[in-house]
Amino acid sequence: MFGNCLENVRKTVPLVHNITNYVTVNDVANVLLACGGSPIMSDDREDVEDITSICGGLNINIGTLNQNTIPSMFLAGKKANELGHPVLLDPVGAGASKLRTETALKLMEELKLTVIRGNISEIKTLAFGSGSTKGVDADVADAVTEETLEDAVAFVKALAGKLGCIIAVTGAIDLVADGEKCYVIRNGRKEMGQITGTGCQLSGLMTAYVVANPDNRLEAAAAAVCLMGLAGEIGWSRMQEGDGNSTYRNRIIDAIYNMDAETLEEGAKYELR
Amino acid sequence: MFGNCLENVRKTVPLVHNITNYVTVNDVANVLLACGGSPIMSDDREDVEDITSICGGLNINIGTLNQNTIPSMFLAGKKANELGHPVLLDPVGAGASKLRTETALKLMEELKLTVIRGNISEIKTLAFGSGSTKGVDADVADAVTEETLEDAVAFVKALAGKLGCIIAVTGAIDLVADGEKCYVIRNGRKEMGQITGTGCQLSGLMTAYVVANPDNRLEAAAAAVCLMGLAGEIGWSRMQEGDGNSTYRNRIIDAIYNMDAETLEEGAKYELR
Amino acid sequence: MFGNCLENVRKTVPLVHNITNYVTVNDVANVLLACGGSPIMSDDREDVEDITSICGGLNINIGTLNQNTIPSMFLAGKKANELGHPVLLDPVGAGASKLRTETALKLMEELKLTVIRGNISEIKTLAFGSGSTKGVDADVADAVTEETLEDAVAFVKALAGKLGCIIAVTGAIDLVADGEKCYVIRNGRKEMGQITGTGCQLSGLMTAYVVANPDNRLEAAAAAVCLMGLAGEIGWSRMQEGDGNSTYRNRIIDAIYNMDAETLEEGAKYELR
Repeated sequence: MFGNCLENVRKTVPLVHNITNYVTVNDVANVLLACGGSPIMSDDREDVEDITSICGGLNINIGTLNQNTIPSMFLAGKKANELGHPVLLDPVGAGASKLRTETALKLMEELKLTVIRGNISEIKTLAFGSGSTKGVDADVADAVTEETLEDAVAFVKALAGKLGCIIAVTGAIDLVADGEKCYVIRNGRKEMGQITGTGCQLSGLMTAYVVANPDNRLEAAAAAVCLMGLAGEIGWSRMQEGDGNSTYRNRIIDAIYNMDAETLEEGAKYELR
Repeated sequence: MFGNCLENVRKTVPLVHNITNYVTVNDVANVLLACGGSPIMSDDREDVEDITSICGGLNINIGTLNQNTIPSMFLAGKKANELGHPVLLDPVGAGASKLRTETALKLMEELKLTVIRGNISEIKTLAFGSGSTKGVDADVADAVTEETLEDAVAFVKALAGKLGCIIAVTGAIDLVADGEKCYVIRNGRKEMGQITGTGCQLSGLMTAYVVANPDNRLEAAAAAVCLMGLAGEIGWSRMQEGDGNSTYRNRIIDAIYNMDAETLEEGAKYELR
Repeated sequence: MFGNCLENVRKTVPLVHNITNYVTVNDVANVLLACGGSPIMSDDREDVEDITSICGGLNINIGTLNQNTIPSMFLAGKKANELGHPVLLDPVGAGASKLRTETALKLMEELKLTVIRGNISEIKTLAFGSGSTKGVDADVADAVTEETLEDAVAFVKALAGKLGCIIAVTGAIDLVADGEKCYVIRNGRKEMGQITGTGCQLSGLMTAYVVANPDNRLEAAAAAVCLMGLAGEIGWSRMQEGDGNSTYRNRIIDAIYNMDAETLEEGAKYELR
């Protein structure tokens, strides 16, 4: 199944429009190329509707949002909605500032999102910051661990069901859920947190996967999470003495580039709940 | 000849002002340093005229153009023209959006450009989108291949002659022409397309080459194309099992850093038409 | 002492708010992670006060300043001052344009800066461009060499004393001074100048060091300079045939990632004047 998702990306070369932060944008572009997709970056209000129209999907990342790019996120998102393109929101820093929280909430309100991908703290901000926590008032802790897993799964499923989109929470254990099913994923390494932008990279990758697998979006989103984590494992296995986070970054992207369906199928560590 | 162009860059350390996209800007800076030049990035309308004045040339790349940087492109370009500095235009995405196409066409109209470097589809957009196709109405295909080469050479020469600047079209086969002569270049590898920004990098590099070789600009532009392609070949020859596009990016820049005149002369694969 | 500074960073994981240029921002983020800190980037006027409030320090780099980010630098700086957070200014290109010079001078005037870090030419611009050179009118040359060292030390101490902040001048020989003491540092390699952004990276690193060592800020700033230079030496020692500036960039960041207190103590080359 996940191998199939991978092959659909390599076969169809999904073009992904990214409105993303300037910190990690180069890595997002190279990850999209590595996985078999194709990236376009555009964030001006007079440019984004045309660009999103020629793409297959839209990745909105609010990491370095500003007065010029915020309106572009709405314009591009509405155009993508009109055209039936998948839209992913990566609410970087939601909860850390009023502007980020409010922008993320407004994007959720005005756009039909296909996926929201963030860490547990960002996702909780979106869930509880909305003012209406009915149905998602699970008592979820600040990290997804074996101890908090059951509550976290219930929370993510409930939120996904309420919002009608896929929720992907990444951390030590990753959760990818719609209202019915939740993939619990145990790929990856903690050292990935010492590289800037592995989350942003995953959001780009996941958008490509969702675009290329229109009939299996939940599986495709879960496949992207497994792929990113597995690439982190493979990249780490190639580290030599003296290597650090900069080389690790390269090795992870290299592992995405070299990933095939069989390796992904064999290396994916997940269960369905 | 090409070796001489390389040595002139290393000897004179041309300072290049880049108004370029935030996706590939770091690689453009490192490539400029690798080839022996020196990069400055500045894109604010109140900053660009001062900065371009202390440089030897200007590289305008519209990859993530916006309402703030578009006026800066015109201001910097006009100042560079006043000072007699070479100006290169990289029309990233011309044809993909109205804003990109119109901005590129207006830059061509209002500035005296020394070089336009893009892929065949961008260059065709500029040629035919201008409304006046007299003299450049060759029936040029969407890729430069051995089959379409003769038409493509005629098209590029005619466009260069009409616009009075050097046209560099990069792809599987690269063409660098003025109105009289066309270099047909066969360096490079297809895997370079799986790295973001090799085109942007080449535009930075080419600007440095043209600045450092004022009496042989066509040759210098062609030398830059050969150098980039040859670096792609050398970089690829150093790839190890498990390496992918991220490591390949590093190896190409490394190869530019280590390139000397003799290696370039021996490795350049071109003919004049 | 320097080893202690390093351990304080690794223990306390200082969160650093960066308003920095888009050329080198990814490397700054990875260097902050490599040294044990944590980066946040935010440059919108409606976002920066919230973001700086949750951080421990602020790194202002004017490398690609623009009309939108300049006001954000003042807003963030004032908020950081209110909260007693260290603020570092990296006046990239001061002296190269009116906008850069004036912005840097105004930031110095309106903010209480903890450290100013730049090359000798930028620092001289700030010293003499201010109109009032009383006390800092040492006849300082354009490069800090063994021959000009005594004058340069006097100049930097005088400027630090006058401005009431730490001045860090980096080049072939680095100087880190307050009004009383000056660290003269001889770590590093000249090839670091062929990588874009080693200065920007150092500014990020130094901010983390100053935040994590509130009682020994001068020592912490000097430790950061030694660490960066030593990482340049270690990184260079791992270079293989065919490697160039792109690989060197990765190896320097890797060396920061792997640096421990003992290695820093043993490798730091400095004297106090």
